[in-house]
Amino acid sequence: MIDSNAIERLSTGIKGFDQVARGGLPRGRSTLVAGTAGSGKTLFAVEFLARGILDSGEAGVFVSFEETAEGIRRNAASLGFPIEQWERQGKWVFVDASLEVTGEEPIVGAFDFGGLVARIGHAVRQVGAARVSVDSLGAVFVRFAEPAIVRYELYRIGSVLEQLGVTSIITSERISEYGEVSRYGVEEFVLDNVIILRNSLANRRRRRTVEIVKFRGAAHRTGEWLFTIDPRDGIVFLPLAFLASDMSTSSLAR
Amino acid sequence: MIDSNAIERLSTGIKGFDQVARGGLPRGRSTLVAGTAGSGKTLFAVEFLARGILDSGEAGVFVSFEETAEGIRRNAASLGFPIEQWERQGKWVFVDASLEVTGEEPIVGAFDFGGLVARIGHAVRQVGAARVSVDSLGAVFVRFAEPAIVRYELYRIGSVLEQLGVTSIITSERISEYGEVSRYGVEEFVLDNVIILRNSLANRRRRRTVEIVKFRGAAHRTGEWLFTIDPRDGIVFLPLAFLASDMSTSSLAR
Amino acid sequence: MIDSNAIERLSTGIKGFDQVARGGLPRGRSTLVAGTAGSGKTLFAVEFLARGILDSGEAGVFVSFEETAEGIRRNAASLGFPIEQWERQGKWVFVDASLEVTGEEPIVGAFDFGGLVARIGHAVRQVGAARVSVDSLGAVFVRFAEPAIVRYELYRIGSVLEQLGVTSIITSERISEYGEVSRYGVEEFVLDNVIILRNSLANRRRRRTVEIVKFRGAAHRTGEWLFTIDPRDGIVFLPLAFLASDMSTSSLAR
Amino acid sequence: MIDSNAIERLSTGIKGFDQVARGGLPRGRSTLVAGTAGSGKTLFAVEFLARGILDSGEAGVFVSFEETAEGIRRNAASLGFPIEQWERQGKWVFVDASLEVTGEEPIVGAFDFGGLVARIGHAVRQVGAARVSVDSLGAVFVRFAEPAIVRYELYRIGSVLEQLGVTSIITSERISEYGEVSRYGVEEFVLDNVIILRNSLANRRRRRTVEIVKFRGAAHRTGEWLFTIDPRDGIVFLPLAFLASDMSTSSLAR
Amino acid sequence: MIDSNAIERLSTGIKGFDQVARGGLPRGRSTLVAGTAGSGKTLFAVEFLARGILDSGEAGVFVSFEETAEGIRRNAASLGFPIEQWERQGKWVFVDASLEVTGEEPIVGAFDFGGLVARIGHAVRQVGAARVSVDSLGAVFVRFAEPAIVRYELYRIGSVLEQLGVTSIITSERISEYGEVSRYGVEEFVLDNVIILRNSLANRRRRRTVEIVKFRGAAHRTGEWLFTIDPRDGIVFLPLAFLASDMSTSSLAR
Amino acid sequence: MIDSNAIERLSTGIKGFDQVARGGLPRGRSTLVAGTAGSGKTLFAVEFLARGILDSGEAGVFVSFEETAEGIRRNAASLGFPIEQWERQGKWVFVDASLEVTGEEPIVGAFDFGGLVARIGHAVRQVGAARVSVDSLGAVFVRFAEPAIVRYELYRIGSVLEQLGVTSIITSERISEYGEVSRYGVEEFVLDNVIILRNSLANRRRRRTVEIVKFRGAAHRTGEWLFTIDPRDGIVFLPLAFLASDMSTSSLAR
Ligand SMILES: Nc1ncnc2c1ncn2[C@@H]1O[C@H](COP(=O)(O)OP(=O)(O)OP(=O)(O)O)[C@@H](O)[C@H]1O
Ligand SMILES: Nc1ncnc2c1ncn2[C@@H]1O[C@H](COP(=O)(O)OP(=O)(O)OP(=O)(O)O)[C@@H](O)[C@H]1O
Ligand SMILES: Nc1ncnc2c1ncn2[C@@H]1O[C@H](COP(=O)(O)OP(=O)(O)OP(=O)(O)O)[C@@H](O)[C@H]1O
Ligand SMILES: Nc1ncnc2c1ncn2[C@@H]1O[C@H](COP(=O)(O)OP(=O)(O)OP(=O)(O)O)[C@@H](O)[C@H]1O
Ligand SMILES: Nc1ncnc2c1ncn2[C@@H]1O[C@H](COP(=O)(O)OP(=O)(O)OP(=O)(O)O)[C@@H](O)[C@H]1O
Ligand SMILES: Nc1ncnc2c1ncn2[C@@H]1O[C@H](COP(=O)(O)OP(=O)(O)OP(=O)(O)O)[C@@H](O)[C@H]1O
Ligand SMILES: [Mg+2]
Ligand SMILES: [Mg+2]
Ligand SMILES: [Mg+2]
Ligand SMILES: [Mg+2]
Ligand SMILES: [Mg+2]
Ligand SMILES: [Mg+2]
Repeated sequence: MIDSNAIERLSTGIKGFDQVARGGLPRGRSTLVAGTAGSGKTLFAVEFLARGILDSGEAGVFVSFEETAEGIRRNAASLGFPIEQWERQGKWVFVDASLEVTGEEPIVGAFDFGGLVARIGHAVRQVGAARVSVDSLGAVFVRFAEPAIVRYELYRIGSVLEQLGVTSIITSERISEYGEVSRYGVEEFVLDNVIILRNSLANRRRRRTVEIVKFRGAAHRTGEWLFTIDPRDGIVFLPLAFLASDMSTSSLAR
Repeated sequence: MIDSNAIERLSTGIKGFDQVARGGLPRGRSTLVAGTAGSGKTLFAVEFLARGILDSGEAGVFVSFEETAEGIRRNAASLGFPIEQWERQGKWVFVDASLEVTGEEPIVGAFDFGGLVARIGHAVRQVGAARVSVDSLGAVFVRFAEPAIVRYELYRIGSVLEQLGVTSIITSERISEYGEVSRYGVEEFVLDNVIILRNSLANRRRRRTVEIVKFRGAAHRTGEWLFTIDPRDGIVFLPLAFLASDMSTSSLAR
Repeated sequence: MIDSNAIERLSTGIKGFDQVARGGLPRGRSTLVAGTAGSGKTLFAVEFLARGILDSGEAGVFVSFEETAEGIRRNAASLGFPIEQWERQGKWVFVDASLEVTGEEPIVGAFDFGGLVARIGHAVRQVGAARVSVDSLGAVFVRFAEPAIVRYELYRIGSVLEQLGVTSIITSERISEYGEVSRYGVEEFVLDNVIILRNSLANRRRRRTVEIVKFRGAAHRTGEWLFTIDPRDGIVFLPLAFLASDMSTSSLAR
Repeated sequence: MIDSNAIERLSTGIKGFDQVARGGLPRGRSTLVAGTAGSGKTLFAVEFLARGILDSGEAGVFVSFEETAEGIRRNAASLGFPIEQWERQGKWVFVDASLEVTGEEPIVGAFDFGGLVARIGHAVRQVGAARVSVDSLGAVFVRFAEPAIVRYELYRIGSVLEQLGVTSIITSERISEYGEVSRYGVEEFVLDNVIILRNSLANRRRRRTVEIVKFRGAAHRTGEWLFTIDPRDGIVFLPLAFLASDMSTSSLAR
Repeated sequence: MIDSNAIERLSTGIKGFDQVARGGLPRGRSTLVAGTAGSGKTLFAVEFLARGILDSGEAGVFVSFEETAEGIRRNAASLGFPIEQWERQGKWVFVDASLEVTGEEPIVGAFDFGGLVARIGHAVRQVGAARVSVDSLGAVFVRFAEPAIVRYELYRIGSVLEQLGVTSIITSERISEYGEVSRYGVEEFVLDNVIILRNSLANRRRRRTVEIVKFRGAAHRTGEWLFTIDPRDGIVFLPLAFLASDMSTSSLAR
Repeated sequence: MIDSNAIERLSTGIKGFDQVARGGLPRGRSTLVAGTAGSGKTLFAVEFLARGILDSGEAGVFVSFEETAEGIRRNAASLGFPIEQWERQGKWVFVDASLEVTGEEPIVGAFDFGGLVARIGHAVRQVGAARVSVDSLGAVFVRFAEPAIVRYELYRIGSVLEQLGVTSIITSERISEYGEVSRYGVEEFVLDNVIILRNSLANRRRRRTVEIVKFRGAAHRTGEWLFTIDPRDGIVFLPLAFLASDMSTSSLAR
């Protein structure tokens, strides 16, 4: 057969990840990054943009729903990423979709996805972004909860991002490490690519792993891969594990 | 007894599958292909049509509900299937039932099955199709969710496809590998044939298997069979596993 | 005590089954046959009538709710049962209660049980049937789902069949092999007799077993018994298993 | 302390049961007998009355909700109990609360407990009954399902039976052998006494056991005890098991 | 630090319990006693009052919701407690909140907590009670079921009892031995103290244990402790178990 | 990379905790402390303020929803904390948001979060508080239950506390030790930091552990750490466990 490389890759630059992904994320598509609280979703989304800036000078847009831009700036600083400086250089733009707490009226049950989509488009064009991170849709989906709406809105955002020509990461919430992939049971079917970040507890210890669950139309390593979060290096996928896995040839796709 | 071959088979041409199926899919009937996200449903549905074109010159119709025709073309290219060329040759027709994202109005809670059924009939007649793939009903059923409606609509589509005289594959979603067969608990009872594609995780590794759960009125091998997805060969059911199984004669139906 | 044989048996003629049942099904009563998709419910229901015709010349009525008469004829042919010929000979009558797909209007939420019951009565009298198979109520119950209605309607059909003086089999759906007996949690309490057909998966292999869960007022063997589905012999309960079990006398009822 | 025998016992006469119960059922009170389909609830309820007639000449009232009086007569005959003869002798009265199937109108969602209670009272007085069996409330509770109503009505029936001065058995349904005691999660709290009949499946075999879960204000053996159902002897609790248990003195209440 | 004995204890007098509780129940507060049907809740509640009368001459109030005063009198007699005599001596008062069965109208969905609270206050003052047992709120909560209402009413009763200056026990229902602490998932958070009575089944045998889950602001032994119910001694916590536990010093709070 | 210490720590002073937290709680942020009933949430919240007063002279505000201020004073006294004295010294202020039980009207389904937020702000300014403990939101969330509202209100409180510049602890309820992190499945995603207190039962014994599930933007030890509650020392995290853990270097974040 022919043309086995139809889908181009975007080398993320995240240490070790591109090897797990056999070349990087499918370029021009959206990838769902699902994980429990503290599993590293936001760090992954931040580092995805940061590596684009540092390694390839690609500008990025970061859409946040619950953490404020200020919170993300400070958390990223702990890994050495100078987001504020990048903002000044026009390399990083925040689309801050977090709730304003303006007194006493809770606004629940509605969200202006159309407006959001317009703001994202605007931001992408403004800096000529190649990468977009959307973190985290859980804060919005909780207001709808209905799987049909969750599915539609995720589909809509994915479509718009694809039309914008960017490669994007969309994070979503899980509540257990080895149960269903997603909270509403539909998120993992909508987008082209799905990655799970796990932080599982066994014998009183936590262990962090990443797994590529699917890349439509693209090869990738399968199964779980260890990683660490390090103040100096950010997210690091461990080379040792790759070595071990290369010796196992039981699955062609791995 | 007499006439043990009443139900004819359609040799799919998918490597190794026809041996698992003891001759291929029951001809003129619909087969449910259920699987989790990334289990290979779409590839199976694509390859089912592709092999018909390549091996027997049979034209095919591909009905898609969420992935766009363009997305499927590109993903199929990664396995070497030149869908666009086949479309030009009148061997492959897309019925693209995916949602149009036309701005801000989510349309949830309704789906024109009658119109869809008419479009499928039209496409089948247009190219004289012998094979139809419908991928994936999950995107539509989520809007109804009510098992009674899911059951009726699946029944309706199966009936229409049978009346059209085609052999068809209808994919559907599962959310865990070894739990219930289908999402709404009714899908597996409606159609004549059911196949499960699994991508199960054990000891940090994934393993892909196929299982024929039922073929009404037809023999088939039972239990789980390993397969791989290979950029050069597409889906490949492993011969080694067949050898091993032939030595086991514990089940007459296997 | 006296009269331990108050309830007569109907020897089904299904290979090996009458030994598991210690003489056959309780005559003049209804038996629920519950099983997952592909577990053999329809084959059991078909063979129940076929053996009556072949072994004792008893006519039978087959009520089907989702599979068409034509589908059942063809599937039965794969086991060598010439249903069409029997229909011509007035030994087999179909009551086809399957949905007509007449265009675009799904009819959900109602079912004319009264009319059905009348049609069954008519068919029984028409051929002087001794046996009736009803396959499968799942297709109708899904429209009610409410356990109270499921219970009432199952009770009503059972009562009517008893009044008609026939021995009958009523199939129903299960969604897991070792979970609850029935889908709505009430079906197994309504009828006098309950049989489970299982097709369970362990170590990648499937194993078919039958179990008589209850025969009100009648002895039967207990526990699970292996069976196979064979194109030449139909359903065959394995004699070897009986031998083994006869050596175990731990349960008087077995 | 004094007066440790405040609650009198009614020796049931069921083989072996009175030993498990350390003297029989608490006299003048109601006992819930819970079990899955086919676990032996009806046989226990029948034999409870039968032994009263045979051993002590006590008359009994049998209230049935789903099985017809005729069905119970025939099933009991299989164990040698001549119910019809006892009815003629004024020793056994049926209160048949089973649904009449009078055509096409299902009557769901209401039940005249007041009328039932009056009929029971009438029957008890008519034959001077000392024992009452109510089998099985599941058929009625399914129409209410609401735990608060189930609880109230069970409480009401228990109170009325207590006021009538009879010792009674009330059967109820369970859907799994080792899950919750009762279907609605409240039944076991209402009445003074609770017994579970189990018919559990392990390694393809069924094993029948009885367990006294509670006797308010009365000693009883605890844990599960094997029993069999035998055409000649009815329900038989195995003496061997008692011997074994007498050697274990780990629990004073056992 | 200072004042480590701020919360006084009430020595219950129940054999062995005060050792498990390291001195008795926190004085002037309410303790939730949760358990399955037959776990010993009512006996514990009865003996709590009985020991107050026998050991310290403290009067008690017993509030019952489903069991009648007469039933409790008789059940208590089996353990040698002469409740009727204590009632005559003004040492024991029943507040009988059990439903009256006055014919045919079930009264569901309302309960006059205000009136109940007033009756309890009246009874406490009438006999100068130091101890109150409330058994069992499950009979009332079933009519509300809504966790928010269950939580509020339990809070209200606890507050009122605390204002009355009594030490009290409030029993509540559980439906499994090792699942959630309480039926509605909120009861264990409301009151200051929580005790679980278990009657768990393993290898066909039952084993009774008590566990103090929490005593706010007070030390107690932790984990499960065996006990028996004995016609002569009532509830007896086994000294042997204490000995064994004293040797284990792995937890300071135990 | 640079600036790996962007997020300052607040040394809590709780014995051993600051080592688990690698320096203390993230300063100026909110931390969710989740635990089952009796797991030590309130003690942790109390000791957090007490250590601020004792070690650094920092004033604190304690917001309580169900336990009264008086109850907390007394419980704290058992650990030697003289809250009343601190209140007089202007170092400790209670915001008592517990329900008033004012007779017969239960007020369910509403809560004035705006008013609460104002009272907290007032109290913080009044004593110049550096630390705030909010214990426990479960009592309020039960009235909404809707995850979207729980999420919004938790977000709102967290935002307000951050704007006030205090470091705060917010306790929340869990109902099982190793199931989902939070009751409504959303709480753990909202705040920057999450700690779990466990009190798990195995082999009849309880074992208390603490785990830091996430600190956004900050390093911490991972996995479960033993602790005890001691009348003399309050909560004590065991040094021995630290030693053992320091030898394991498998996780950089630990
Ligand atoms: N060219 C390729 N080379 C290797 N593996 C591939 C290739 N294309 C696809 N795959 C594998 O197949 C998987 C996708 O298969 P497919 O799209 O058929 O799954 P699916 O069951 O349809 O999933 P979904 O429910 O998300 O639509 C990918 O995750 C990848 O592992
Ligand atoms: N001719 C045959 N030769 C061998 N096996 C057969 C044959 N016909 C049927 N089978 C086996 O029997 C199974 C179907 O049995 P059947 O249709 O009775 O199942 P069922 O329980 O009625 O399923 P459903 O719920 O889908 O109606 C097939 O999946 C196949 O494994
Ligand atoms: N004469 C008999 N000889 C041997 N076993 C018998 C006989 N009669 C009944 N049994 C056994 O008893 C079982 C039925 O018991 P019974 O009718 O009391 O159950 P049940 O708990 O009332 O069930 P249901 O909930 O369906 O009413 C039968 O399934 C059978 O195994
Ligand atoms: N006199 C006695 N001698 C021995 N055991 C007894 C005696 N009285 C009661 N018991 C035991 O105590 C159990 C009943 O305890 P109790 O009534 O306190 O339970 P409970 O938890 O209140 O149950 P429920 O929820 O049904 O009210 C009985 O099932 C029995 O096992
Ligand atoms: N003075 C003390 N000495 C020893 N242990 C104590 C002392 N005070 C409290 N404890 C222990 O701490 C537990 C209560 O802790 P705390 O009140 O903090 O729990 P919590 O998680 O707030 O519970 P809740 O959800 O019920 O409010 C008690 O059950 C007890 O085991
Ligand atoms: N500077 C750092 N040094 C070490 N570990 C860090 C650092 N920053 C973050 N971490 C680790 O990363 C975790 C947080 O990761 P992140 O915020 O990406 O999780 P998340 O999946 O987005 O969680 P949430 O769902 O709560 O937003 C922290 O709990 C901590 O364990
Ligand atoms: Mg995040
Ligand atoms: Mg697909
Ligand atoms: Mg069938
Ligand atoms: Mg019965
Ligand atoms: Mg009780
Ligand atoms: Mg607390």
